[in-house]
Amino acid sequence: MAWLLHPHLARDTLALGDLALCRVLLMNDANYPWLVLVPRRADAVEIIDLDTGDQAQLMAEIVRASHALRDHTRCDKLNVAALGNAVPQLHVHVIARFRGDAAGANAVWGKAAPLPYAPGAQQRLADALRAALGLR
Amino acid sequence: MAWLLHPHLARDTLALGDLALCRVLLMNDANYPWLVLVPRRADAVEIIDLDTGDQAQLMAEIVRASHALRDHTRCDKLNVAALGNAVPQLHVHVIARFRGDAAGANAVWGKAAPLPYAPGAQQRLADALRAALGLR
Repeated sequence: MAWLLHPHLARDTLALGDLALCRVLLMNDANYPWLVLVPRRADAVEIIDLDTGDQAQLMAEIVRASHALRDHTRCDKLNVAALGNAVPQLHVHVIARFRGDAAGANAVWGKAAPLPYAPGAQQRLADALRAALGLR
Repeated sequence: MAWLLHPHLARDTLALGDLALCRVLLMNDANYPWLVLVPRRADAVEIIDLDTGDQAQLMAEIVRASHALRDHTRCDKLNVAALGNAVPQLHVHVIARFRGDAAGANAVWGKAAPLPYAPGAQQRLADALRAALGLR
């Protein structure tokens, strides 16, 4: 079966482009610069559903996304997580965290409601992150 | 500087043993079968603080812990996360989730208070997971 991005991930994000394994998405939430990596593998739910080569590639892309996000945002901390409690399609969050951000010392899930970006701001961040990720 | 397990991780867990890179811990929380992998690398805070070889080994150990946990618990879902919002020492959560568990469709952090294991139960789970992980 062909891989298709889950409609909830499509709805909640702006697509930045494709790395070798993952589609890279930017969440529609100005509370945190927040990337989502989605391996383009049909029916993958868990990291252990990927073959060993794809698992290694996923780590390499997590590392690449982490560097791009931290270099661009100068964040204090990164959060990296594959949860899938709400959306079953395998996806990995890579989130830039700042001291005093909307979730404070907590995990972001279930904390602040998504905050819309100011007009143009998400597109500018997307362009900067595309450049940092070497996308296009 | 020598690596030392962060005292908060030591306090909140039972140690299962050491894989090639990570110390493997079992959380003191009967709400979820919950492993924590801690790379034995001094001063590592982010995954990107590890060198490329250690990053690949971390993925291999996440995969190994995921298989052991799922095979033993028959859980519905795995949650894998490196957050570090509370404890700065790099550590990766590998959590067995069940439909209707204490966090439901949410992430576990900030939900249910830790639930003590019944006498002997954590030790039995620890022994089973050590065997599944090939520790000792």
